[in-house]
Amino acid sequence: MPLNILFSAPVADWADYGPHLKAALAEAGVEAAVSPECPDPAKVDYIVYAPTGGLSDFAPFTRAKAVLSLWAGVERIVGNPTLTQPLCRMVDPGMTEGMVEYVTGHVLRHHLGTDAHILGQDGVWRNNIRPPIARERPVAVLGLGELGSTVARTLAGFNFPVMGWSRTPKSVPGVTCHSGEDGLEAVLRQAQILILLLPLTDDTRDLLDARRLAMLPEGAFIVNPGRGPLIDDEALLAALDAGRIAHATLDVFRVEPLPPGHRYWSHPRVTVTPHIAADTRAITATRVIAENIRRGEAGEPFLHQVDRDRGY
Amino acid sequence: MPLNILFSAPVADWADYGPHLKAALAEAGVEAAVSPECPDPAKVDYIVYAPTGGLSDFAPFTRAKAVLSLWAGVERIVGNPTLTQPLCRMVDPGMTEGMVEYVTGHVLRHHLGTDAHILGQDGVWRNNIRPPIARERPVAVLGLGELGSTVARTLAGFNFPVMGWSRTPKSVPGVTCHSGEDGLEAVLRQAQILILLLPLTDDTRDLLDARRLAMLPEGAFIVNPGRGPLIDDEALLAALDAGRIAHATLDVFRVEPLPPGHRYWSHPRVTVTPHIAADTRAITATRVIAENIRRGEAGEPFLHQVDRDRGY
Repeated sequence: MPLNILFSAPVADWADYGPHLKAALAEAGVEAAVSPECPDPAKVDYIVYAPTGGLSDFAPFTRAKAVLSLWAGVERIVGNPTLTQPLCRMVDPGMTEGMVEYVTGHVLRHHLGTDAHILGQDGVWRNNIRPPIARERPVAVLGLGELGSTVARTLAGFNFPVMGWSRTPKSVPGVTCHSGEDGLEAVLRQAQILILLLPLTDDTRDLLDARRLAMLPEGAFIVNPGRGPLIDDEALLAALDAGRIAHATLDVFRVEPLPPGHRYWSHPRVTVTPHIAADTRAITATRVIAENIRRGEAGEPFLHQVDRDRGY
Repeated sequence: MPLNILFSAPVADWADYGPHLKAALAEAGVEAAVSPECPDPAKVDYIVYAPTGGLSDFAPFTRAKAVLSLWAGVERIVGNPTLTQPLCRMVDPGMTEGMVEYVTGHVLRHHLGTDAHILGQDGVWRNNIRPPIARERPVAVLGLGELGSTVARTLAGFNFPVMGWSRTPKSVPGVTCHSGEDGLEAVLRQAQILILLLPLTDDTRDLLDARRLAMLPEGAFIVNPGRGPLIDDEALLAALDAGRIAHATLDVFRVEPLPPGHRYWSHPRVTVTPHIAADTRAITATRVIAENIRRGEAGEPFLHQVDRDRGY
């Protein structure tokens, strides 16, 4: 009997994901009926899930073997008390690639001082101002999961001295890895460009507060494609106003869409991008979903299953 | 007896290069006196040379065993009829790194559509416009020397489908290489981002003329950190005016500094950078110079010796 798979995401995504999901399941040898509708929750075998799909009560899904998130960040579901099924987060190769492109692009933009050229085409040939080369510019990546470690390795490939920081000790080739509170201070004190790719947990909320912002070198750059609440917004605005932080490029915010009147929009030292750094790509993400369903049916462990206590 | 080395470059560079050059020579085990002055050309063993140093008559340097250029481009010296000594161009690891950073930074900037964010912080959350990921964006590098091949390999590392083109057939791992006139057309027809890293020769002057610009896909981007005269400026301005070329980022020009009134400065689809893409770095370049002097004294072949007929 074919499996019943519920696609619980915004209706608008179905047109893009439906055909890819069906193709990926066929490719994985999984016989399944996929639908964005759910006449009988008790008959659903797997739930493909995005928080924007509206589903919040998982209790009626008594037969469901797993909730397979289309998003990398699971903070909007991980604490849901009705969720008793295994939860898997999305680790999409297309999303990782997009993240590497976004972060490298903005790191090089700040490193090269590109904004001055884009905004200052005034006919004055200023070729006496030259930035250091990458090997002279220490950068740091906070968070060494799939995204953070891939970004860190890529930046190390440009010869940036790359420091990495994570809650628990990790090892990434070519990257000087630190952990713990002392490790965080050591990293922040040297980071001329700081990249935030931490998951959002109780431990990481407001991680970048006034005290830790003050540890960064004068004129540091911040790139946050991770999660909005990792930063204390008022503290960052104060550091930007003072010019101690040269620029912040922010892709994620406490409230999204970022309200039109928010100071980030008008601040000359801030670039707002509208949560575009890393997007789940239907063509690659549906293959990950299909593989996890195949694993579930074969009794193999799921990929990227979330540790509910740790929160990611 | 120590060698006599003439440092023939702008006086302002001596402060930066002098100490590094002395240290690099000592490191290479070469006993030498280095000076920016030349009381007796007949006693000079090696000439360290930049075209901006003012030296143009090499005939009096009867004992000189080589002219060691501090610049990668040698078109301002290679045709000098008084030059009978071997000429070596600069291939500086620091310069290659700087070039890779510049090109990757601007390629990702155009790929990600970053300018729209930098210039358009208007409070409107436009997260429905998403660029393709790199694997969906064919890019091309014209010129596969040290700089071009390193840039091409780096871009291939981001999964851009990378085409390379050179006068004679070459092979670069991960890059689809073409050569010859037919190969050039095949490359131009597909290149959504085109990077010019060709040497300037009679064959490459005005290579990108109206006919070849018309081969590029609608909305293509051009990045030229190579040599200014590779592009027919009037043809490029016409293609930009028509919007067929989305943007050109230009670091080199027929006349430098680019005159304040030049249309490139004011064109909304052009970014002028003041010949900063790849700079010779004293710390790395002086090691290359010292190694070539060591080789010359040991009777070993010079590194990066210029083929005078080919012109580079």
